[in-house]
Amino acid sequence: MSASEDQTIAIPAAPEATHTTLRATVPALEARLYQPVALLDHGFVRVIDYMGDDHAIVQAARVSYGRGTKKVSEDTGLIRYLMRHRHTTPFEMCDIKFHVKLPIFVARQWIRHRMASVNEYSARYSVMDREFYIPEPAQLAGQSKLNRQGRDAILEGEDAARVLALLRSDAEQTYDNYEWMLNEGSADKPADPERMGLARELARMNLTLNTYTQWYWKTNLHSLFHFLSLRADPHAQYEIRVYAEAMLDIVAAWVPVAHQAFLDYRMGAVTFSGPMLAVLRRMLSGETIAQADSGLSVREWREMMASLEIAPS
Amino acid sequence: MSASEDQTIAIPAAPEATHTTLRATVPALEARLYQPVALLDHGFVRVIDYMGDDHAIVQAARVSYGRGTKKVSEDTGLIRYLMRHRHTTPFEMCDIKFHVKLPIFVARQWIRHRMASVNEYSARYSVMDREFYIPEPAQLAGQSKLNRQGRDAILEGEDAARVLALLRSDAEQTYDNYEWMLNEGSADKPADPERMGLARELARMNLTLNTYTQWYWKTNLHSLFHFLSLRADPHAQYEIRVYAEAMLDIVAAWVPVAHQAFLDYRMGAVTFSGPMLAVLRRMLSGETIAQADSGLSVREWREMMASLEIAPS
Amino acid sequence: MSASEDQTIAIPAAPEATHTTLRATVPALEARLYQPVALLDHGFVRVIDYMGDDHAIVQAARVSYGRGTKKVSEDTGLIRYLMRHRHTTPFEMCDIKFHVKLPIFVARQWIRHRMASVNEYSARYSVMDREFYIPEPAQLAGQSKLNRQGRDAILEGEDAARVLALLRSDAEQTYDNYEWMLNEGSADKPADPERMGLARELARMNLTLNTYTQWYWKTNLHSLFHFLSLRADPHAQYEIRVYAEAMLDIVAAWVPVAHQAFLDYRMGAVTFSGPMLAVLRRMLSGETIAQADSGLSVREWREMMASLEIAPS
Amino acid sequence: MSASEDQTIAIPAAPEATHTTLRATVPALEARLYQPVALLDHGFVRVIDYMGDDHAIVQAARVSYGRGTKKVSEDTGLIRYLMRHRHTTPFEMCDIKFHVKLPIFVARQWIRHRMASVNEYSARYSVMDREFYIPEPAQLAGQSKLNRQGRDAILEGEDAARVLALLRSDAEQTYDNYEWMLNEGSADKPADPERMGLARELARMNLTLNTYTQWYWKTNLHSLFHFLSLRADPHAQYEIRVYAEAMLDIVAAWVPVAHQAFLDYRMGAVTFSGPMLAVLRRMLSGETIAQADSGLSVREWREMMASLEIAPS
Repeated sequence: MSASEDQTIAIPAAPEATHTTLRATVPALEARLYQPVALLDHGFVRVIDYMGDDHAIVQAARVSYGRGTKKVSEDTGLIRYLMRHRHTTPFEMCDIKFHVKLPIFVARQWIRHRMASVNEYSARYSVMDREFYIPEPAQLAGQSKLNRQGRDAILEGEDAARVLALLRSDAEQTYDNYEWMLNEGSADKPADPERMGLARELARMNLTLNTYTQWYWKTNLHSLFHFLSLRADPHAQYEIRVYAEAMLDIVAAWVPVAHQAFLDYRMGAVTFSGPMLAVLRRMLSGETIAQADSGLSVREWREMMASLEIAPS
Repeated sequence: MSASEDQTIAIPAAPEATHTTLRATVPALEARLYQPVALLDHGFVRVIDYMGDDHAIVQAARVSYGRGTKKVSEDTGLIRYLMRHRHTTPFEMCDIKFHVKLPIFVARQWIRHRMASVNEYSARYSVMDREFYIPEPAQLAGQSKLNRQGRDAILEGEDAARVLALLRSDAEQTYDNYEWMLNEGSADKPADPERMGLARELARMNLTLNTYTQWYWKTNLHSLFHFLSLRADPHAQYEIRVYAEAMLDIVAAWVPVAHQAFLDYRMGAVTFSGPMLAVLRRMLSGETIAQADSGLSVREWREMMASLEIAPS
Repeated sequence: MSASEDQTIAIPAAPEATHTTLRATVPALEARLYQPVALLDHGFVRVIDYMGDDHAIVQAARVSYGRGTKKVSEDTGLIRYLMRHRHTTPFEMCDIKFHVKLPIFVARQWIRHRMASVNEYSARYSVMDREFYIPEPAQLAGQSKLNRQGRDAILEGEDAARVLALLRSDAEQTYDNYEWMLNEGSADKPADPERMGLARELARMNLTLNTYTQWYWKTNLHSLFHFLSLRADPHAQYEIRVYAEAMLDIVAAWVPVAHQAFLDYRMGAVTFSGPMLAVLRRMLSGETIAQADSGLSVREWREMMASLEIAPS
Repeated sequence: MSASEDQTIAIPAAPEATHTTLRATVPALEARLYQPVALLDHGFVRVIDYMGDDHAIVQAARVSYGRGTKKVSEDTGLIRYLMRHRHTTPFEMCDIKFHVKLPIFVARQWIRHRMASVNEYSARYSVMDREFYIPEPAQLAGQSKLNRQGRDAILEGEDAARVLALLRSDAEQTYDNYEWMLNEGSADKPADPERMGLARELARMNLTLNTYTQWYWKTNLHSLFHFLSLRADPHAQYEIRVYAEAMLDIVAAWVPVAHQAFLDYRMGAVTFSGPMLAVLRRMLSGETIAQADSGLSVREWREMMASLEIAPS
């Protein structure tokens, strides 16, 4: 086997034939199966398999009540009730398996979510492809001075050009040296027969964190919603958020009722603490309240006013 | 809604229509979908949904190697290799959802396996059915004197008859009183309008542990194999083992290659400790060894000889 | 070994000697170690071991920031910030191990929480004690007509007396028959030498669900807070809520800052959906809104008004 | 705050004062608390906290038997029995928290073990230190031709020198450019006031995979044994194996009986499949068997002969 054959990360295509099944099937998701959604410069996410639909959530919830299925409007109400009251186990009855190509630094954030099954391309066993994430100029944000996790204005002009050039040249150079260490050769550049190649498991350490990797990632709908509530959030880093947003769009095709309930009761929701509720009740009774006599810290006060879209006085 | 309608635990039938899907589909399992396998006197297990097949295991393992699919004989070898070396993550890519009806004391053993999603019929919310597990006379085993977890000879004659009569009459009586406390009435026995019914969440405490319950239970193939290795084992209690055996039979239809690998390398396998291996090597070199000079405890020696089918001298 | 010796469930006492340790130690919790808090008629909960304290939460959060420890007021602010924003992993760094004695029907609810380690007294291996939960008359609630999971008014007079008598006599009778089937004998009632005892794993099925069991239950602080948010809630069944409340009291002694943050931001908090927030903003700007033009369902409107303590018009 | 202060990853020292506790305490482990074990060129592992000891395992197992504690020799036998028969839940009653400093490519292998709690130093929030793993010359292994995951002979002479020089210079250069992009300045090199610094969450992508990170990693003894069985194994990559071996040594101090049982029944153990057992029985009865008539594949036959230390004929 030539090295080039070996290096190409396989991306199985959609099967040619369809099958007949008794299982719950979602035509809108079938239409997207195996279709990659392109993300960043070389990444993608696509659905490889799934199990369950909106009705499976209802079916699981109903086993508790000893009653058969009811008409659709009630199913919708039940799913929304389950989401609103965080009755999460029925959502665990649906599963989805994604194939994802993503930069390593994004993979490192993602893997913190433990409630999933993962099989990742192994750089111990195989040679990584020469593919790196280089941000779009519009994403080249400066470090926020206020918030240590945040981004600020966009770098521009010469500074931006220099950053992009460095990211590109460092990734290329470290990859060149990775290839030299491996000495496995390729179609156009044969291996040096005089020199032993370094073990793949060692050579990989020379790669930069924007190198692309890929994996299968399978999780249930409850865990997926938890992942999306954190990673499709505006506070998430842009480079993982684009994946979460694409997955959220897939979820809309898969389980439209649960998806809408998730948007209403989780993504768009705000939690008020006991002390915040007390302030809210006073405000609704007509009282004018300043932070100083609210009983809330400055930080909590600001968070609350922001939720209510009340400009700071 | 009349109480009787309310009390009947709903058992959704197979859907009438089939669907077209691009997903991995297993005809041998499709043929069993929604079909209950009767177990014990009133129990059953049936498959409601599944995801993946033998090939999905291979596909997940191969993402690590950056190579496309190979021919079937290699797939079989790869699955057997994964099982033998306990590379477990590719088996997590397959999921199965069961609907199970089982006695409460069996459910209590089963639920200890945490790597699964469960929705159980709620006796807080609904009224339990009048159904109890009463063993077949052939299962009426005496308490082992040697092994505190084990069964001994079968009870016979009058003793057996008395046990069965007691199990039956106690279950019936406590259920009668449960119904009386609930005072919900039924088609043939109306509720007493003068008397307030006890809360369902309280009345249930009067039921015996052989009352049947039911649940949806969903897990991945890796966790299922772990469950089956413990519960389809001859040391497992008969009443849970029959469920495990029926599920193992379903697994044979679903993922035949992984199933055979499981039988060979897990169910039929024996682990020898370092000290046992040392003894084995001496035996194979022709040495005759007694427990006293084996370095093994009496218990370990007995376990080892049993595995090798060597009669104690 | 006589049966009576065998039947007594062992309750290890507090060790006599103290030790010297470099580990984080909480004197207020040390004072409660091994001390059972009596619950219901025969139950208890007590702490057997723990790891970590408020500072361990801060320490784990700070590793992310590359900074050393700061002064106490900042620690408090940081813990409250983590709780408010559901940054949950630092709370996983604290663990606690409880020894709990509880009725089986309560154990069945409790075990649904999977993120814990459990070792339960085995009725397969040992003989259960003759101890049953019989509610206090004040807890003998009727079934709610409005809410199928809820309780209504308290049963009184003859009806209540009859229920209590039935619960007691059924538990006693099924236990008598359990003992007869086992035929293991006791100090005052020797076994019948002519009769084989039924296997323990079978005889146990004759017991009622209010029989007491016990277990060690170990979990981390994050999972414990999740458990408490559901089980110390007014909607939880009284019989499990008393355990949750006792554990919450123990948490107050163990990690007082995290406990207060939990009360403020989880127990006393209310989540408003996107549509509810829109209504709230209109109300705060002085608008008078009726359910009909709120865009909320009747159920959501009621839940929202209840949170705001606004009487339905 | 100056950048240098900000950049130094905090390593909390051992507390100065000891405490008095009623909890299970292990003097041999107390002596190692907070003491880093140096690994690789800049890494370490150290214990920060722990809960439980050998006796806690016994205590959890005994709750199943309703009996009090027995004498030490029986405790040892019980722990060995639990390990041999994979009764794993009692081992979950012990927890340990490590502070680990390790190269990112090692962290990526490690994090696949999901049954643990992790708090990692965040390169989104903070600046990484200028520290990279450069292998010892003795670890500079060539790629195995036989086994794609393995190492072969050691690189020597000029080739080795060139690899080490490249690893070093690429890491230094990418770090220099990382610092330039950040433009945060340091004590000896002030920030350029004319230029906006790139967001930390972006700049980090320019670092190589041998950059050191650190985390708190907490797990229970059962999960730790699973981790060690895979990572202290000779097939594990050297760079993670040194961590596993150091942790195994710590486990020996913490729970000496469980540690010895683990060595005997897990690390030193070999599992024979049903077909292998059949061959073994024939061999023990004096038969001479060749692979061809063994019923085993060539690969299985080789694995079996290697376990028995029988040279291939």
